[in-house]
Amino acid sequence: MSAWVLPDHIADVLPSEARHIEEIRRDLLDMARCYGYELVMPPLLEHLESLLSGTGEALDLQTFKLVDQLSGRMMGLRADSTPQVARIDAHLLNRRGVARLCYCGPVLHTRPGGPHASREPLQFGAEIYGHAGLEADLEILTLALDALRSANVGPLTVDLANARIVSALLKASGLTAAEQDLVHAALAGKDASELRVLTRQCPPDIAIAIQSLVELYGDARVLDKAAQRLPALPEVQQALSELQWLGKHIASAFDDVSVSFDLADLRGYAYYTGTRFSIYAPAAHDALARGGRYDEVGSVFGRKRPAVGFSLDVKELASAAQLRPLRAAIRAPWGEDAALRLAIAALRQQGETVVCVLPGHESEVDEFQCDRELKEQSGQWSVTAI
Amino acid sequence: MSAWVLPDHIADVLPSEARHIEEIRRDLLDMARCYGYELVMPPLLEHLESLLSGTGEALDLQTFKLVDQLSGRMMGLRADSTPQVARIDAHLLNRRGVARLCYCGPVLHTRPGGPHASREPLQFGAEIYGHAGLEADLEILTLALDALRSANVGPLTVDLANARIVSALLKASGLTAAEQDLVHAALAGKDASELRVLTRQCPPDIAIAIQSLVELYGDARVLDKAAQRLPALPEVQQALSELQWLGKHIASAFDDVSVSFDLADLRGYAYYTGTRFSIYAPAAHDALARGGRYDEVGSVFGRKRPAVGFSLDVKELASAAQLRPLRAAIRAPWGEDAALRLAIAALRQQGETVVCVLPGHESEVDEFQCDRELKEQSGQWSVTAI
Repeated sequence: MSAWVLPDHIADVLPSEARHIEEIRRDLLDMARCYGYELVMPPLLEHLESLLSGTGEALDLQTFKLVDQLSGRMMGLRADSTPQVARIDAHLLNRRGVARLCYCGPVLHTRPGGPHASREPLQFGAEIYGHAGLEADLEILTLALDALRSANVGPLTVDLANARIVSALLKASGLTAAEQDLVHAALAGKDASELRVLTRQCPPDIAIAIQSLVELYGDARVLDKAAQRLPALPEVQQALSELQWLGKHIASAFDDVSVSFDLADLRGYAYYTGTRFSIYAPAAHDALARGGRYDEVGSVFGRKRPAVGFSLDVKELASAAQLRPLRAAIRAPWGEDAALRLAIAALRQQGETVVCVLPGHESEVDEFQCDRELKEQSGQWSVTAI
Repeated sequence: MSAWVLPDHIADVLPSEARHIEEIRRDLLDMARCYGYELVMPPLLEHLESLLSGTGEALDLQTFKLVDQLSGRMMGLRADSTPQVARIDAHLLNRRGVARLCYCGPVLHTRPGGPHASREPLQFGAEIYGHAGLEADLEILTLALDALRSANVGPLTVDLANARIVSALLKASGLTAAEQDLVHAALAGKDASELRVLTRQCPPDIAIAIQSLVELYGDARVLDKAAQRLPALPEVQQALSELQWLGKHIASAFDDVSVSFDLADLRGYAYYTGTRFSIYAPAAHDALARGGRYDEVGSVFGRKRPAVGFSLDVKELASAAQLRPLRAAIRAPWGEDAALRLAIAALRQQGETVVCVLPGHESEVDEFQCDRELKEQSGQWSVTAI
C-alpha cells in the first residue's frame, strides 16, 4: 500500500490550492506582460554543462542528474531558470538593445531549501537585459513589488543590499581568496568577533569597515552611518548612492511598502554584482521574492550583458496569500434533450461553470458550490437560485 | 561554445510561441472549469513504483529514473499524468461519488514519441471518476472537442473505437496470451494475411470476425457491417451499441465534426477498457487528443473506480493552431516625474501593456508592437496614436 506515498518534500497540490496557485500564476504573468516582459519557456532538461557553467557549486549540488539515452551525455534538471533565460537572451534572441523576459515553470531540487520547503518550487521570474543603468534595477524591483501586491499578502518590506560594497572592501583588504571566503561566512553569520580576527592584517580603515558592516542594517539612516564608517572608496560611495536612489524611489512610489537596508547581506554573493533586494510579507518567515543585478550571468554563453532580475516560488507565495472566493457554479441535470444541451453550452460560453449531475448521482455533494440550477419550466430551460 | 546547444528533441520556447501556448493553456483550463473539472497538480517526481505500478512496459521505457538523495530510493520523472491523477482520486480525495479532475503540466520522455516529437510535452488532460455509464464517456469527448475547438485548429474528425470488441473476440478465440499479443500486433499493422495464419485454430466465426476487423473502419455504416460480420456475443453487441450512441450524440451536438469508426484501432489496448477516441485536425498528421475509458487505472492504488479521460500536448496543439494577434502596447518615456509614473501605473491597472523606453534606448525596435505612446502636453500625460 505504499504506492501512494510521495517522496519527502514532494507533494500533490489538491483542488482548492491548485486553483489558487493557477490564479496567482496568471496574475503574475499578466503583471509582467503589462510591464512589457515577453514570456519564454526554457526546457526542464539540458546538458549539464549548459545548465551549470559559471553558476557555482551550490546549484550543482541542487541539480538532479540524468543520462541522456539518445546521446549518452549527462543532463540536468533545472534547479533555477535564470541561467537558462540568460542563455536565451545571449544566443536565441541575440538582440542588441533591451530585452525583457519572464518565465514561470517548475524547477527541481535534490534537497529542500529549508525544513518546510518543496523540492519542486514553481519558479516565476522576470529579467531585463541590456541596460546597465539603475533604471533597470528600479523597474525590476517595482515589478516585483506590484507582482507581490497582486497576490494580496499584506504589507510588504523590501530589504536592499549592494554586492559592490563587500567586494570593494575585500578587494582593498589584501586578503587571499580563501580568507575572503571566511569573511563571507563570518558576515553571513554576523559573527563580529570572527571578523575582528580575520581582518587583523588588513589596512585599519578596511578592517573597521568590514567589522562595522554587521551593524549596518535598518532604515534609511543606515546609509548615513555607512557614509561615516566606510572608507571613501569610489565603488563604496557609488554603491551607497545607488541604494539611496532606489530606496527613495520605492518609498515615493509605494506608500504601503517599508524599505530597509542590510549592508552585510551576502546571500547569493557569487551571483549578484550590484544592487540586491529581498521582499518580505508578514505571513511568510522567509523572503517571498529575491532579485538584483547579475551582469556576469551571460558570460559563459559568450555574451556578457547587463542583467537585472528577480524570482519567486508561486507555491510559497500562494500559501502566504489569502484564498480567493470560489466562483459559484450552476447545477444542471443530465439529459438528451437538445434544448437542455444548448442551454448548458450557452452558459459555458458565457464563462459560467455548469456541472452536469450524471444519472444516479443526484444526491452527491458537489465540489463546486452550486448556488443556481438549470430547470425546465413549460419547455424552457432557465437558471434559478437554489 | 557548445554551452547553448540543447539535447535532441528538447527545445526552448521563444516569445511568440510561448505567448500562444500560454493563451491556449488558459483556454483549455477555463474550458475544463466551465465543465466543473477541478484542477490538480501532481508532482513531476515520484517513487518509481507509484509512477509505474500497473502501467506496462511502454511507460517504463519512457520514464527517466533518478536516485533520491534523501532516501536512496529510485524516483521517476512522470511520463504521463494519468496514473498520478488516478492516485489522487483513489487516495487523497477519496470521494464516494463523481470526481472531475483536470491538470496541465510538463511530462518528460526518455525517447521522443516520433521523428518530430518533443521529449517534454506539456500535457493537459481531464478525467471523470466514479460513473460507469456512457454519459461520462460522452461528457469527456464533448469536453475534448470543445477544448480543441477553442484552439482554432480547423474542422475536427473524431475516430471512435471500443477496446471491448477485440478483447471479447480474443476471449472467445481460445488463443494463448502470447498468441493474443501477436494478434494485437497484426491488427495494429492491419496485416490480414498474418491474421489468417494466427486465427487458423480459432472457432470459424471468431476467426472471420478477427480477420474482418481490419476492414471495419469508416463512417457510421461500419457499425451495420460489424453487426453482420461479428458474432452475436453480448459484449460485442454492447460495444457496438455504445459506439452508435456516442457517434449519434456527437453528430447532433457538433455539426462541424465528422465522426468515423475504426474497430481494429488498438492504440493503448493494455490501458483502455471501453470506448476510445482520437481527434484529428487538418493541420496535424497525428491525433491532437486521445482518450477513452480505463476503469482499471486506480486498481494498483487499491481503489478501482470507473474512469474516463483524455489528454493532449498543448505544444503540439499550439503548433497546429493559428497564432492570435498580439495585443498592441503603449510606449512610454522613462522619467522620475510622479505624474508620469502614476499615468503608467493607471494604464497597467487597466490591463494595458506599457513599455518604458530606458534612457539611451530610444531608437531600438520594440518587440511589443507599440501603436500608441504616452506623451506630455501642457503638464498632462495622455495616450496618443503613433
